[in-house]
Amino acid sequence: MTKAPWIMCRSEIKVLDCTIRDGGLVNNHQFDDDFVHAVYNTCVAAGVDYMELGYKNSERMFDKTKCGAWRFCNEESIRRIVGDNATPLKLAVMIDAGKTDWQNDVIPKQQSVIDTVRVAFYVHQVPEATDMIRDAHEKGYEVWANLMAASTATEEEIDKVLEILAETPASVLVVVDSYGSMYAEQIERLVTKYLSFGRGTGKEVGIHAHNNQQLAFANSIEAIIHGANRVDASLGGLGRGAGNCPMELMLGFLRNPKFKLRPIYDTLERCVAPLQKNIEWGPYPEFIMTGQNNQHPRAAIEARENPQTRDHYVEFYDRIMMQQ
Amino acid sequence: MTKAPWIMCRSEIKVLDCTIRDGGLVNNHQFDDDFVHAVYNTCVAAGVDYMELGYKNSERMFDKTKCGAWRFCNEESIRRIVGDNATPLKLAVMIDAGKTDWQNDVIPKQQSVIDTVRVAFYVHQVPEATDMIRDAHEKGYEVWANLMAASTATEEEIDKVLEILAETPASVLVVVDSYGSMYAEQIERLVTKYLSFGRGTGKEVGIHAHNNQQLAFANSIEAIIHGANRVDASLGGLGRGAGNCPMELMLGFLRNPKFKLRPIYDTLERCVAPLQKNIEWGPYPEFIMTGQNNQHPRAAIEARENPQTRDHYVEFYDRIMMQQ
Repeated sequence: MTKAPWIMCRSEIKVLDCTIRDGGLVNNHQFDDDFVHAVYNTCVAAGVDYMELGYKNSERMFDKTKCGAWRFCNEESIRRIVGDNATPLKLAVMIDAGKTDWQNDVIPKQQSVIDTVRVAFYVHQVPEATDMIRDAHEKGYEVWANLMAASTATEEEIDKVLEILAETPASVLVVVDSYGSMYAEQIERLVTKYLSFGRGTGKEVGIHAHNNQQLAFANSIEAIIHGANRVDASLGGLGRGAGNCPMELMLGFLRNPKFKLRPIYDTLERCVAPLQKNIEWGPYPEFIMTGQNNQHPRAAIEARENPQTRDHYVEFYDRIMMQQ
Repeated sequence: MTKAPWIMCRSEIKVLDCTIRDGGLVNNHQFDDDFVHAVYNTCVAAGVDYMELGYKNSERMFDKTKCGAWRFCNEESIRRIVGDNATPLKLAVMIDAGKTDWQNDVIPKQQSVIDTVRVAFYVHQVPEATDMIRDAHEKGYEVWANLMAASTATEEEIDKVLEILAETPASVLVVVDSYGSMYAEQIERLVTKYLSFGRGTGKEVGIHAHNNQQLAFANSIEAIIHGANRVDASLGGLGRGAGNCPMELMLGFLRNPKFKLRPIYDTLERCVAPLQKNIEWGPYPEFIMTGQNNQHPRAAIEARENPQTRDHYVEFYDRIMMQQ
C-alpha cells in the first residue's frame, strides 16, 4: 500500500461546479441573477476550475414562461452575470441529445463567453451525441461527453459507446451515476474502463455522482483514487432529487492549496441555506429507495412534491418494490 | 477483480442498532418508552442482530434529573421494554471507562436480560478497559472492545492497544471513527490492522462510523469489504452530532434476505421523522468542519445548540481554523 496517499494533493484534478445546472432541475432553472452571481463569485474565489451554468435547450421545446433563463443559457443571460469573464474560471453549459437545437443554438466559440460544452446523452442517443460532440468541437469548444444512467446499460453497450467516444474529439469522458445507485466497487470498474478507452487518445475521466445513498462524495473520492481527474460538485450538494457531491466536502478532501473553503461556507450561509426554505434536495428516504433499486428519481420527486404523499415511506416502499 | 462481489451477501455479517445508545447523546437519553419499544420491535422485525440500549453509567456520576433512563440502563428499565426478550435479538449496553461503576452495576449475566457489553475507552484508559473487559466476560457476557477516537492515536499506540486487546476475552474489536474524520483509505488500513491482531484469537472486527463527511455508510461498506463482520447503524442515522451510518442504507446494501427494510421505513415514518422536529442530527456544515479537521464534535454541537451561532458557518470556520 502507498504510504498515507491522502497527505498530498494531485494537481491534475479539476473541479466543476454544477450548482446552477443540476440545481436548476429542482426549480425549473429559475435562479435569480443575485444567486447565480453569488455562485459565480464563489467559484472564482474558491479556485474552482469550471462552472456549469445550465442547459442550452431549445426554446421551441421548453416553455419560456415556465423555465428560467438557465434552461436556455443565452449568451445575453450569461454575460449579464459574468461580463466577459476575465477570470481563470471556465464556463460550461450542458446540451442534451433530443432536447437541444445544437446546430443553431451552439454559436461559434469566438462569439461566446462559454468555454466548455458538455454533451449529455443516453445509450440510445449515441448517434446524435457524436454529431453534437463533433459540432461543438468544430465550433471551437472544449467538449466533455456525459453518458447518463450508466447503471442501466450493459457492459457490452458501455464498451461500444466508449469505443465510439474514443474516436471523437471529446476531451473528457464522464462516469455519470444518474440514479445514485452505484457502490464504490462499481465506480472503480467504470472509471477503470473509461480510462482504458480514453487514455490512448489523451482523454481524462470525470465523475458525476448523485447522493441517493449518501455516496456522492464517497463515490467521487473512489473515482479519483482510480484515476478520474475531473469531478463535479455543487454548493451544499444542490442538485436534482438527492443532490450531488457537496463542494464543501470535495474541496476539503482535495487539499490543493489553490482551493479555498471560506468563500464556499460564506455562500452556503448567505445564499444556499436560505434557499432550503423554498426548494428541497437531499438523500430523503424516497431517494434511497429509487437509488437502491436503480431507478430514475422521478417517482421519488413526485412523491415528495405532493404533501399528501411526502414522507409516506412505507406506501412508497410498497410501490417501488411491487413495480419491479 | 472478483466478478460483481455485490451480487451475493456475506452471512457472517451482523448488524448492531445503536439508535438509542448513540442517539441518546443527542437528547440526554430521554427517549420515552414508546420510542424505545418501537425501535426494539423494529430491530426484531427487520432481522437486526443486536440492539444497544444505552450506557450503563454510574448514578453517582450522572444527574438522574437531567439524564433519561438510557444513560443508566437499569435492569428494570430494560425489562419494561423487552420483558424477557424472547426473540433472537441480542441486547447490548455500553460501559465507558471513567464513567461507570462497572464492579457493581454490571450484574452477573444470569440475572440480566443483557447479552453483550461493549467497553468504550480512549487510548489513555486501556488499563481500566482491560479490567472492564475481563470483569464483564467473567460475569458471563459477550464483550466487545471499542477504542474510541482512533483517528487521534498514533500507529504505535494503536498497535500496542491491539496487542493488549488480543489477549483479552473481547470477541469483537471495533474500529471507531468518533470524529467522522476518516476516509476510506484510512478505514481500510485500520480494519486490516485490527484483523491482523484479532484473527489469531478468533476475534471479529467491527465498524462504528460517524457521518460528519457523509461517509458513515461508505466507510462502513469499506470496512466490510476489508473484512469487518460487525457493523453499527441507526435508524435514520440518529446519533451524536452528524449521526451514524443509516440502518436503511446498510440493510439495503447487505442484501441478506434475513434483513427486512419495510419495518425500518415504517418506524422512520412513524417515529424517527417526527423526532426531527425536536432534536437535530445530521451532516451540517459545522460537523463537516470538525470532521475534516479531526476534532471532537463538541464545538459544533455547541454552535448549533445556540440560535445565535447556529448556521454561522464562516464564523465557525474561522474559529476552527484559528484554533489549530
